[in-house]
Amino acid sequence: MKKDFDLLSLGEILLRLSPPDNERIVRGETFQKQVGGAELNVVSGASLLGLRTGIISKLPDNALGVYAKNRVRFCGVSDDYLVYDEEPDARLGIYYYENGAYPRKPSVVYDRRHASFCKIGVEELPQEMFASTRCFHTSGITLALSENTRNTAVEMIRKFKENGAIISFDVNFRGNLWTGAEAKECIEKILPYVDVFFCSEDTARLTFLKDGDVKSMMKSFTEEYPISIVASTQRIVHSPKVHTFGSVIYNAKEDRYYEEEPYRDIEVVDRIGSGDAYISGALYGLLAHEFDCQKALQYGNATSSVKNTIPGDLPSCDLKEIDRIIRNHMGMGAQVEMER
Amino acid sequence: MKKDFDLLSLGEILLRLSPPDNERIVRGETFQKQVGGAELNVVSGASLLGLRTGIISKLPDNALGVYAKNRVRFCGVSDDYLVYDEEPDARLGIYYYENGAYPRKPSVVYDRRHASFCKIGVEELPQEMFASTRCFHTSGITLALSENTRNTAVEMIRKFKENGAIISFDVNFRGNLWTGAEAKECIEKILPYVDVFFCSEDTARLTFLKDGDVKSMMKSFTEEYPISIVASTQRIVHSPKVHTFGSVIYNAKEDRYYEEEPYRDIEVVDRIGSGDAYISGALYGLLAHEFDCQKALQYGNATSSVKNTIPGDLPSCDLKEIDRIIRNHMGMGAQVEMER
Amino acid sequence: MKKDFDLLSLGEILLRLSPPDNERIVRGETFQKQVGGAELNVVSGASLLGLRTGIISKLPDNALGVYAKNRVRFCGVSDDYLVYDEEPDARLGIYYYENGAYPRKPSVVYDRRHASFCKIGVEELPQEMFASTRCFHTSGITLALSENTRNTAVEMIRKFKENGAIISFDVNFRGNLWTGAEAKECIEKILPYVDVFFCSEDTARLTFLKDGDVKSMMKSFTEEYPISIVASTQRIVHSPKVHTFGSVIYNAKEDRYYEEEPYRDIEVVDRIGSGDAYISGALYGLLAHEFDCQKALQYGNATSSVKNTIPGDLPSCDLKEIDRIIRNHMGMGAQVEMER
Amino acid sequence: MKKDFDLLSLGEILLRLSPPDNERIVRGETFQKQVGGAELNVVSGASLLGLRTGIISKLPDNALGVYAKNRVRFCGVSDDYLVYDEEPDARLGIYYYENGAYPRKPSVVYDRRHASFCKIGVEELPQEMFASTRCFHTSGITLALSENTRNTAVEMIRKFKENGAIISFDVNFRGNLWTGAEAKECIEKILPYVDVFFCSEDTARLTFLKDGDVKSMMKSFTEEYPISIVASTQRIVHSPKVHTFGSVIYNAKEDRYYEEEPYRDIEVVDRIGSGDAYISGALYGLLAHEFDCQKALQYGNATSSVKNTIPGDLPSCDLKEIDRIIRNHMGMGAQVEMER
Amino acid sequence: MKKDFDLLSLGEILLRLSPPDNERIVRGETFQKQVGGAELNVVSGASLLGLRTGIISKLPDNALGVYAKNRVRFCGVSDDYLVYDEEPDARLGIYYYENGAYPRKPSVVYDRRHASFCKIGVEELPQEMFASTRCFHTSGITLALSENTRNTAVEMIRKFKENGAIISFDVNFRGNLWTGAEAKECIEKILPYVDVFFCSEDTARLTFLKDGDVKSMMKSFTEEYPISIVASTQRIVHSPKVHTFGSVIYNAKEDRYYEEEPYRDIEVVDRIGSGDAYISGALYGLLAHEFDCQKALQYGNATSSVKNTIPGDLPSCDLKEIDRIIRNHMGMGAQVEMER
Amino acid sequence: MKKDFDLLSLGEILLRLSPPDNERIVRGETFQKQVGGAELNVVSGASLLGLRTGIISKLPDNALGVYAKNRVRFCGVSDDYLVYDEEPDARLGIYYYENGAYPRKPSVVYDRRHASFCKIGVEELPQEMFASTRCFHTSGITLALSENTRNTAVEMIRKFKENGAIISFDVNFRGNLWTGAEAKECIEKILPYVDVFFCSEDTARLTFLKDGDVKSMMKSFTEEYPISIVASTQRIVHSPKVHTFGSVIYNAKEDRYYEEEPYRDIEVVDRIGSGDAYISGALYGLLAHEFDCQKALQYGNATSSVKNTIPGDLPSCDLKEIDRIIRNHMGMGAQVEMER
Repeated sequence: MKKDFDLLSLGEILLRLSPPDNERIVRGETFQKQVGGAELNVVSGASLLGLRTGIISKLPDNALGVYAKNRVRFCGVSDDYLVYDEEPDARLGIYYYENGAYPRKPSVVYDRRHASFCKIGVEELPQEMFASTRCFHTSGITLALSENTRNTAVEMIRKFKENGAIISFDVNFRGNLWTGAEAKECIEKILPYVDVFFCSEDTARLTFLKDGDVKSMMKSFTEEYPISIVASTQRIVHSPKVHTFGSVIYNAKEDRYYEEEPYRDIEVVDRIGSGDAYISGALYGLLAHEFDCQKALQYGNATSSVKNTIPGDLPSCDLKEIDRIIRNHMGMGAQVEMER
Repeated sequence: MKKDFDLLSLGEILLRLSPPDNERIVRGETFQKQVGGAELNVVSGASLLGLRTGIISKLPDNALGVYAKNRVRFCGVSDDYLVYDEEPDARLGIYYYENGAYPRKPSVVYDRRHASFCKIGVEELPQEMFASTRCFHTSGITLALSENTRNTAVEMIRKFKENGAIISFDVNFRGNLWTGAEAKECIEKILPYVDVFFCSEDTARLTFLKDGDVKSMMKSFTEEYPISIVASTQRIVHSPKVHTFGSVIYNAKEDRYYEEEPYRDIEVVDRIGSGDAYISGALYGLLAHEFDCQKALQYGNATSSVKNTIPGDLPSCDLKEIDRIIRNHMGMGAQVEMER
Repeated sequence: MKKDFDLLSLGEILLRLSPPDNERIVRGETFQKQVGGAELNVVSGASLLGLRTGIISKLPDNALGVYAKNRVRFCGVSDDYLVYDEEPDARLGIYYYENGAYPRKPSVVYDRRHASFCKIGVEELPQEMFASTRCFHTSGITLALSENTRNTAVEMIRKFKENGAIISFDVNFRGNLWTGAEAKECIEKILPYVDVFFCSEDTARLTFLKDGDVKSMMKSFTEEYPISIVASTQRIVHSPKVHTFGSVIYNAKEDRYYEEEPYRDIEVVDRIGSGDAYISGALYGLLAHEFDCQKALQYGNATSSVKNTIPGDLPSCDLKEIDRIIRNHMGMGAQVEMER
Repeated sequence: MKKDFDLLSLGEILLRLSPPDNERIVRGETFQKQVGGAELNVVSGASLLGLRTGIISKLPDNALGVYAKNRVRFCGVSDDYLVYDEEPDARLGIYYYENGAYPRKPSVVYDRRHASFCKIGVEELPQEMFASTRCFHTSGITLALSENTRNTAVEMIRKFKENGAIISFDVNFRGNLWTGAEAKECIEKILPYVDVFFCSEDTARLTFLKDGDVKSMMKSFTEEYPISIVASTQRIVHSPKVHTFGSVIYNAKEDRYYEEEPYRDIEVVDRIGSGDAYISGALYGLLAHEFDCQKALQYGNATSSVKNTIPGDLPSCDLKEIDRIIRNHMGMGAQVEMER
Repeated sequence: MKKDFDLLSLGEILLRLSPPDNERIVRGETFQKQVGGAELNVVSGASLLGLRTGIISKLPDNALGVYAKNRVRFCGVSDDYLVYDEEPDARLGIYYYENGAYPRKPSVVYDRRHASFCKIGVEELPQEMFASTRCFHTSGITLALSENTRNTAVEMIRKFKENGAIISFDVNFRGNLWTGAEAKECIEKILPYVDVFFCSEDTARLTFLKDGDVKSMMKSFTEEYPISIVASTQRIVHSPKVHTFGSVIYNAKEDRYYEEEPYRDIEVVDRIGSGDAYISGALYGLLAHEFDCQKALQYGNATSSVKNTIPGDLPSCDLKEIDRIIRNHMGMGAQVEMER
Repeated sequence: MKKDFDLLSLGEILLRLSPPDNERIVRGETFQKQVGGAELNVVSGASLLGLRTGIISKLPDNALGVYAKNRVRFCGVSDDYLVYDEEPDARLGIYYYENGAYPRKPSVVYDRRHASFCKIGVEELPQEMFASTRCFHTSGITLALSENTRNTAVEMIRKFKENGAIISFDVNFRGNLWTGAEAKECIEKILPYVDVFFCSEDTARLTFLKDGDVKSMMKSFTEEYPISIVASTQRIVHSPKVHTFGSVIYNAKEDRYYEEEPYRDIEVVDRIGSGDAYISGALYGLLAHEFDCQKALQYGNATSSVKNTIPGDLPSCDLKEIDRIIRNHMGMGAQVEMER
């Protein structure tokens, strides 16, 4: 039976405001106006590659909420499961982002407390939603935002799982939202439900208190929990404008690690959302290619690398372009300088 | 003894975000980035005319707070009495403003709850502040924002009055912050301290439940309370882009009403803050010209009218320009087309 | 049986390029980049009011086609029936638009020949499409663009009619695409299928060679053809920046004319698409309110008037806002200056 | 014998810097960057209508000078007679312009002293220049800028006259450059050479101390000097954004006044250069139509009126568009709303 | 006998539309608006260096054509040989350009079919044109665009040659316009007329089926045809933002190769037109310095390298600046950090 | 006794106009509008770090002067000692700045002659100013601008010294303002008053005709004059977009050199003012940390390096951020990629 969606995700949609180019937040007279949010970034990237996706979120019932909804649709994500907050204190969370240039780091100011998303409840969404998708994804940010979002996320994970969905989870640890200990305790409760697990080496070590090399830490998760696939990204920040990006994926059933040559010296335009873009590529690889981890690796690395070259949170690459970039990365075909 | 300041004001400083020209909040890719707030608008206008002014407010201790402080200084207002909120939930209140064009009205979306300003306390400011100014001004918005700001404002009014300051108060009734009954009850408690009272005809009628014509309502306030001067603005909105503006001032001691020909068919560029600009002009007239209500009337009407032609909340006119506009309005001097 | 769509429309999607503000095409260094097209304008307006709509069109399979698709989704219109042209000569039609200011008129340069839309064929769309909507709309522009689009449009009208859809047709005569005689001959062939007919007074007189007053001309169409409703807009162009707009609707079954006070002295920001916005409002009124012509009149006039205040081809008003504007126009409720 | 040029003009080219829209000089973060200058405005307008024109001027030999030269060429004016100042104090004069909106007037700040143009000398230009044009034009601004420009201008007028050129002169009195008495004394010395004389009613009265109505003052110039044609513009400034514009032309040989209905309620976008545009239209009418004053009147009024709708100093209208506007003004042809 | 022009070129002028910075075509709300085209790029670069140049092309007789003409003049190129297409299907060809950043390549979308240029005929240009220039240049793009442009180009090459002009030809092979075999067949027919031949190593190998190293391939052209000079550029694309550029020139009469150290690690802002800029520098070197191939090499390499740092198709460097860059490249003179 | 100011500086305030991004002065349609000037840059940087600073300067009494004053206040610098020039020839000096990209160098065009600042006199400032500050700073630019500014600067140095202020002086040699010999002669007259001396290696060698290595040259100044501290910056310009920056400081009393690892491969956004930022950091280090040269070195290097990443002349970094950058540079604390 064909499901309506390949991928649904629960997460906050934020208004992102950033000064143009290298201008600073403390000066200047304009902000670029965009939307973002870890889970939205994931589904919008997956949608561009060809998955049918939707975002589960709560928006204020005002012009900003309409703006966010319009952007969601612009990037090809279904707004069927957006609910609206009509109370007088409804608000869209905001973050301010400023680019860096060595030795100045990029910086972020959050203003996301009290956002309408924090009030989202399972009962606001239709029951049939839980049977409508092949895969459900959320992240540690949603768990960390508030007690209510944590409960909602855990309940949704349970319900989607019951309805046969694959559960994908990205730790995405943020020290400004909760402590490592809080994260560990909470996430360990949901790991029994998780099929695809995204966790960086640092987080494995510092939050889950694992030791050993990255591969053994990745494997250990699958030994403790019924996780099928663990993916771990590896980013080297040469400077705010130059990164190198690669990843490792571990397939528990095959007991096999997938790796490839990283993308070196990426010309970074906007780094935000490139981790989420990795997930969108990896999930595309898995969901569109019968859980082929080689595809997940290639699509994940390419989608993330190219996201770094695009302003804003949201990716902007379709399958044709990503396939070209993968072929180039593998040194296949004519190496043209320009796409004409 | 010369005081450090002519005018201090207590009020929230907001980040104002507005789409360019006639673009809508629900679309587009940039926001103009400015600051505003009724009391800041008043002191910045008064400062441009030549008064020494300062704003008493609380800002988040982050890049947005620094931005707001920089703008305060840019418009010539002292930041001596800005205090900073270092808590993790510190935030700068925001409002989104969109221009109108008949038959579409201008519109505003507020996101000012939980702002750092709501936490401001009298104890955060130095005691000597209360003796440092000739005049203290605040508005009904500050009273309405939260119980804490209300208490702080009332306490400050009391302390400034004790130290010999003239108390100026603008009702500025906002139905989305409190009810008319709440406003009436609260404001009637502070009217015994008020010297200069700004109240529109509609507010007198609907909030204070007065009746009669505008002049008799104005006078009645001075009969019930020891108010010296009552000012009431009169705006006719022909369309979002065309207004007519005038006012009446009543001097209780003289028992005299001051009026002049209104400014007709103002070419409105940005209407926000024009009411506050009136107060800045009126207070300048009173404070710089020994409480000459004729000057208050002329400076108030001119400053307000010209504010309508300037983008953003804040006025941008110095004394020389306002004097020229007043002379032109009175038909004095050569009527040149352009200032060269 | 509930249909998937309330309204589908067949028409060309154009890239619209316009210099900012009052700049000219022959100078300057930027173009505003938007999409438009008479039929897309109609469905996007109807979608904003709450109808489920889709556009039937053909786009080039390149970055411009993707851009157009993204904009279609941004405005809430389904892209289910967009087909793509993969041939090397695929192209998106363009028009250049420049604002006017008296005595300079707005002007348009078309570059829409050889566009991919001209190749659209009935066989490219799925058969079930014809049974998926309550109403089908197209315009004389689609008929005029090429012989192929004319044949496609006529065939679609026939098929939608067979499947029970209401047929809506807007003459939208353009002298630069065909002659009046060509238009008359072609349109008279499809009038037997039409239920809702949009035709201006000038077009009735000059193209269909009717005489008499506007009402008798409107009625005469319903006497010659099985048309249920005829609507005719009445625009007075005081200057490029000031228009007055109203309309008349005739209901043949009731033999009744509907009229209301026009919107006078509209502050025009961008006039393009305001005729199409009328149709979106009128169709909304008819389809959402059981063919109540009074609703069609009110929604048509309000939606068109407010479109004039919005930059670009596409409307940007939801039902809540239009309802407020209608109430204001009828003098109902408090007349506030600003929406807060 | 065909001359290379129809019209040459001597005058300063200025860099014009203006804040966007209604922003003020004292604030904001960008300036629009343009060039202007009374005589350049005249020749660029005439060039657009079809005359072969050139500007005689002196520019600094730096990037700003190159910019000015590029703009001169952009508007179709020959740069054959531009000379360059290679001294270390070379500079391009500047003026800052800010739009108005009632009750705020437009305003200008000049920074044109010590400009390279002030050093221009007759000996820098080739002798053949004086025989290369049918008409030479300059204005009182050039006379007023410095003693050197005055001498250069007078000498050039003499030399062009000797070589058979028609001499056109615009008083363009600027009180910030010289006094009325200085202007009168200087201009009266060159009036014996002038064929076409542009002088407003106010200037005739206040500078030349004439009295009577405008027509008798115009005629009196032709009685005192061998002037063939006198033109006087009549502008009514309803507000900074609404003007009415017309003119009177007197032909001495015919002893006839030419007048037409003024352009009423022009939607002013940028008023600067509209007086110069009048001259470009009038000279086009005279030079392209065998001194037909009716043509001069029509082209002058239309070119000036439409210049008001165009941002910047320089006109941007070709003959086709002006002819359409004249026909519309005369009520001829179909009155279409838009040029398609 | 001095000719009017040093260099005339036949080629299409395109409207170039590109999103700002690193934005994508499929998103965003503005396009930068410029003109370009291989042959225009060549003559505008040569004009900046001091040659008298003109472009032979055909433009639509509408506002876009006027815009293109204005830009041609802005860059100092004569518009004497622009002809206009007044037919209703007249159009200006367009291309859309998007910057790259590793791993995302720059990309181009063409919409140049059916452009007015494709209709250009020899008979539209005046006969005297063929005797008015020292050198005529065109490229393989002009040959490839349509059968008509191919015939026109071949005919013009023949006529200019007859009139004593040097013939310069750039292969500029574009696989999206014709096949290598078509190109080879056509170009071999015109090589007997060519004096200066620009051909890259890849094209020599893939299109002309040459083998051996670049130098022997270059020489072989001069052995088969009466070509005097062959130039071949060598670009290394480290990433979209970093290139290295150099070239080899072969002088057949001297049987000598000219080479210099390439410009390494150019900070690429906009790569488009840098190949054309090479030709403008090389032709300047040859035409202004009596066919000195050393000068051609130095001016070619420097002009191309610096073009990469300038946004848009067209170069923007005068002789003074290029001379400074050449001296710096040769390590001559003080190595200052900044030009003051 | 606490002084009002930590640092006062005498210097010209310039309007800075620069094209956006990599656009050129000779083209384009906007200028970024900023203020700058060596001494203003120093005090604004010091103010951001926490010193109480003011600028002594003279501005024209027009809108540009008001703009400059507003910007001074925006960056937290006192305008108490700004005086205004009301004469008709009052003007604000201007400089035009254009970014570079290898092989194109950044370039500057000055238009600062005849500026109001050149007229500044000691008598215009209040006597109490000389006793109001702990430190007075000026530079060789002020000495070089005109005879009057030279006299004023020398007189002020003398008066501040008499009143106990520390004298800081930056040679900042500009070959376009005076010759090395003039500079040497003038500066040697003021060195007896100087406490903190900023002089680059090149200037020591070329202007003061010193020889030996940089350290011995630095020491020699302290042997000849009663200078306490000499600082010398060391910049390596890899390309216009990549610099390496470090410095040496010599403390005469300690006879000790301070050095640290330079900041390598700075991602340069705007290089202007980075030398001045060094001084602001160094003076902050000295004045806030009891003349600790280690602090001066660290704050100087960090403030300068980060200025390179910020558009405009003026720094934009507060103490918190600089401290973070210093800690990162020293490899202390967690090396996070982004400030959240």
